[in-house]
Amino acid sequence: METLSENRCFGGVQGVYRHASEACACDMTFGLFLPEEAQDGPVPILWYLSGLTCTHENAMTKAGAQQWAAEQGIALCFPDTSPRGEDVADDEAYDLGKGAGFYLNATQDPWATHYRMWDYVADELPALLAANVAIDADRQSITGHSMGGHGALTLAMSLPGRYRSVSAFSPICNPTGGDWGRKQFTAYLGAEEAAWTAHDASLLMAEKGFDGPVLIDTGTADNFLDLLRPETLAEAAAKRRQPVQFRMQKGYDHSYFFVSTFMEDHVAFHAEALYS
Amino acid sequence: METLSENRCFGGVQGVYRHASEACACDMTFGLFLPEEAQDGPVPILWYLSGLTCTHENAMTKAGAQQWAAEQGIALCFPDTSPRGEDVADDEAYDLGKGAGFYLNATQDPWATHYRMWDYVADELPALLAANVAIDADRQSITGHSMGGHGALTLAMSLPGRYRSVSAFSPICNPTGGDWGRKQFTAYLGAEEAAWTAHDASLLMAEKGFDGPVLIDTGTADNFLDLLRPETLAEAAAKRRQPVQFRMQKGYDHSYFFVSTFMEDHVAFHAEALYS
Repeated sequence: METLSENRCFGGVQGVYRHASEACACDMTFGLFLPEEAQDGPVPILWYLSGLTCTHENAMTKAGAQQWAAEQGIALCFPDTSPRGEDVADDEAYDLGKGAGFYLNATQDPWATHYRMWDYVADELPALLAANVAIDADRQSITGHSMGGHGALTLAMSLPGRYRSVSAFSPICNPTGGDWGRKQFTAYLGAEEAAWTAHDASLLMAEKGFDGPVLIDTGTADNFLDLLRPETLAEAAAKRRQPVQFRMQKGYDHSYFFVSTFMEDHVAFHAEALYS
Repeated sequence: METLSENRCFGGVQGVYRHASEACACDMTFGLFLPEEAQDGPVPILWYLSGLTCTHENAMTKAGAQQWAAEQGIALCFPDTSPRGEDVADDEAYDLGKGAGFYLNATQDPWATHYRMWDYVADELPALLAANVAIDADRQSITGHSMGGHGALTLAMSLPGRYRSVSAFSPICNPTGGDWGRKQFTAYLGAEEAAWTAHDASLLMAEKGFDGPVLIDTGTADNFLDLLRPETLAEAAAKRRQPVQFRMQKGYDHSYFFVSTFMEDHVAFHAEALYS
């Protein structure tokens, strides 16, 4: 772990670190906020997965999460959204390739070599943190925005026992049913749709659900509602009798102004699970 | 006022607007946050002046001020830091020309045509807002960061009765005594140092002070302390017996991680003055 920057922030430290990733076969950069309490021993951790076009930096600077994490004594980790570097395959579109890893392990060329964000976020990065910083691996929760909300929900439902709680801001809820998903899954996973279902939050909700609290916020004025398809996830959760707080927030859009508005709620929601 | 964007944010609206500026003889863009209360009538306003290299956007997205302004029912205005456009004189250095207006009216060529940020922030923009949005011109306060802290302090002391309170984050405190000032004042105002004193917070503090509360935060780990010269302002304020909260914050640097950490304090500080 090479330190790129460290800034004091709400009594803790907001750092940016780089490391050689085995999963992604390239150098990866991530943001990590450690609250003051981490000086005295391991603290719980909340993962924040970002959306399309983002790096590790967007949420770290714009989501306003550190203040609430500091108040609760919780660490925050902000992974990047795809592998990086000149050797890494890319596409001209903003929603495929770099910045658009979709939190899965690609099986198709030219993506399979580096696009292994599932392994990176589920295994490699948690192990790196556990070995190097004062976080308590038994107390993890996860959230994310848009594509990152998709990542948070699919990871949480697929790894039972790993995360105590899951939340999402305007998540992509049903990627197998919309253009934020079908296009990418075809490229990364191939045309055979059976391989896609493990990465669709609505299908996972119908099949498995989540053994813990779930909080989902989406703006009623979100300009991407047709791509996010919140209705499929809401239906699946209700059908399953999944304990869930599903909120459509009046007048809010897809931006970080929306995310930051409800960040206090989300961190408090996770804190309750992490400290119970 | 042309609307460039409007996003719902903490119950209010974060907008970005463009207008033809007479003072700067170019189009200017600014950010404006209006809390929910502005729908029912005029609200107090807090001006936030940004630092070197910033536009209207940096603080609007990274300072985390809207949540506290929403809580207090206060509007926020984020002006740009210099005139803009292809016709506007510039310099290769980051600290002269565009992004570095220093909140003064330039008198020297090639700057005098457009670089009139004093008139813009003191007169034109407040008049534009008063004519177009629900703000209460009798209840204004001002803050800023770095070069913007210099702007906030010099405007507040030079316009008695205009602002009820003034605060600053790591302000340039004594520009006539350091390289963040002497270089720019020579370019914008000419080599005659008598013309500079109206734009030096430490000299203004010694000469006039401020008839209201003053709050200044600076990080002890700020990498620009030698350029900011907080000691000159602290000395001048103490010598004058100026009511002031002057705080050196342990371990914090010059970044927005520092600004956002103490934003709650600053907005609460101004709210007390604006609602008294």
